[in-house]
Amino acid sequence: VSGEWRAVTVAGVGLIGGSFALALRQAGFRGKIIGVSSPATIRAALERGAIDEALPLAEAAAQSDVIYLAQPIQRILETLSVIDSAIRPGTLITDAGSTKRAIVERARQTIQRGCFVGGHPMAGKEARGVEAADANLFRTRPYVLTASDPELEHWIEKIGARLVKLDAAEHDRLVALVSHLPQLLSTALASLIADSPEAARVAGPAAADLTRLARSPYDIWRDIFSTNAEEIDHAIADAIARLQTLRENLLSEPDMQATFARAAQAASQLRQNTI
Amino acid sequence: VSGEWRAVTVAGVGLIGGSFALALRQAGFRGKIIGVSSPATIRAALERGAIDEALPLAEAAAQSDVIYLAQPIQRILETLSVIDSAIRPGTLITDAGSTKRAIVERARQTIQRGCFVGGHPMAGKEARGVEAADANLFRTRPYVLTASDPELEHWIEKIGARLVKLDAAEHDRLVALVSHLPQLLSTALASLIADSPEAARVAGPAAADLTRLARSPYDIWRDIFSTNAEEIDHAIADAIARLQTLRENLLSEPDMQATFARAAQAASQLRQNTI
Repeated sequence: VSGEWRAVTVAGVGLIGGSFALALRQAGFRGKIIGVSSPATIRAALERGAIDEALPLAEAAAQSDVIYLAQPIQRILETLSVIDSAIRPGTLITDAGSTKRAIVERARQTIQRGCFVGGHPMAGKEARGVEAADANLFRTRPYVLTASDPELEHWIEKIGARLVKLDAAEHDRLVALVSHLPQLLSTALASLIADSPEAARVAGPAAADLTRLARSPYDIWRDIFSTNAEEIDHAIADAIARLQTLRENLLSEPDMQATFARAAQAASQLRQNTI
Repeated sequence: VSGEWRAVTVAGVGLIGGSFALALRQAGFRGKIIGVSSPATIRAALERGAIDEALPLAEAAAQSDVIYLAQPIQRILETLSVIDSAIRPGTLITDAGSTKRAIVERARQTIQRGCFVGGHPMAGKEARGVEAADANLFRTRPYVLTASDPELEHWIEKIGARLVKLDAAEHDRLVALVSHLPQLLSTALASLIADSPEAARVAGPAAADLTRLARSPYDIWRDIFSTNAEEIDHAIADAIARLQTLRENLLSEPDMQATFARAAQAASQLRQNTI
């Protein structure tokens, strides 16, 4: 299937968009990669060698086979509302947003002349921006697609990611559990520790582990919360219920033993899949 | 002050006891180190070079200036109930148990001829046993003492730990927050993930981070829960309340922004102190 894409537009050339461009190139993509971003980001992306040229969105879209939306979720939603008239018929539009239901729904309403496939590469790192982009960022990581596209699937496998197909609702339910809830547990713990300043004096690796995510800036979470509120609400409620059970069973050895064993097994299995 | 200890007994030559013995030696301690443990552990400890000789507890105690109790908490409590008649007057007894109130209380009732100083080195690693012992295990880590002893404090600083003095109740309140609650948050999350087997397909670094602790075996937690139940109950209740607030404020941008900022600051500060 390889070789059918001749030009790819990456809209939002930050960590994810820049890494996707570098990964495509490393995997043997020979077509043109056009960047759409702010002037400062474009300068950095050209310097980093992530893109071949930069154009305004409408001009880039008019000459591309693929539009890869790697913007913040709200910007993806806005782009989906205006892109359809700018593309050639049959253009593939895909995205890298962290929630999928709102985005897939918007695309269903607005994309008529192109094909939309929702995407979510489960990869990232603390540093942001195209300066931190890395051709190997997606290697061994899950890459969720909400629909099929042979050429897109071909490149996702070539860049070393593990293709996972899920519908948008199932994706959003699962990431509420494995990504959004962990963030909120970490934020909750760190905010409790903030109330006990002496706690830092005795904090060891356990507290460091559990509060690493709490350093994430709110600006990347705002859109996730607003587009996945219902599933996150369920996940928090489930976590509260589970903590309440642990609290009630704290001195009940057989119950705690069973819960610890089950949790340890799930934690080990998770690491076999993800690390 | 250095040089006053001539013989130290380490009761329980596992990861912590073995590491303390190796650290003492590396820091220049020239006296004798006597191990009290099961035959298999003693063989491994002698092979590892952590101890000079092995004796039954009563014989070891009779010729030591210091008894270092690095056993599980329940064993420490049992040892404290029988040790006083075996020691020479003025012997220092200290421990490395993860909770302090029950242990300090027991020592207050049972130790008449010796002096007891509760201790808790905030260090560890996943591997257990004297085979994993490491002379540098305590380096840069907090080492809590519940009372003063100049010679013990001297050696704690010589092995590179950061001395922190706290009374037993304050220690137990703080570790409930920074150590016991993180374990239970991790166990709660991993046990929820165990209920959604498909979740492992999309799990990334966030889930891996937050479930690392969930692999801890219950047998090291049983005694911690039974000797710090009240403070752990409070910590879980606080976490539930905080999660409930996050849940209610999920779409309230100023509230979430403020909570994230405060949590991020505490998480960063924690890392400056501990990593």
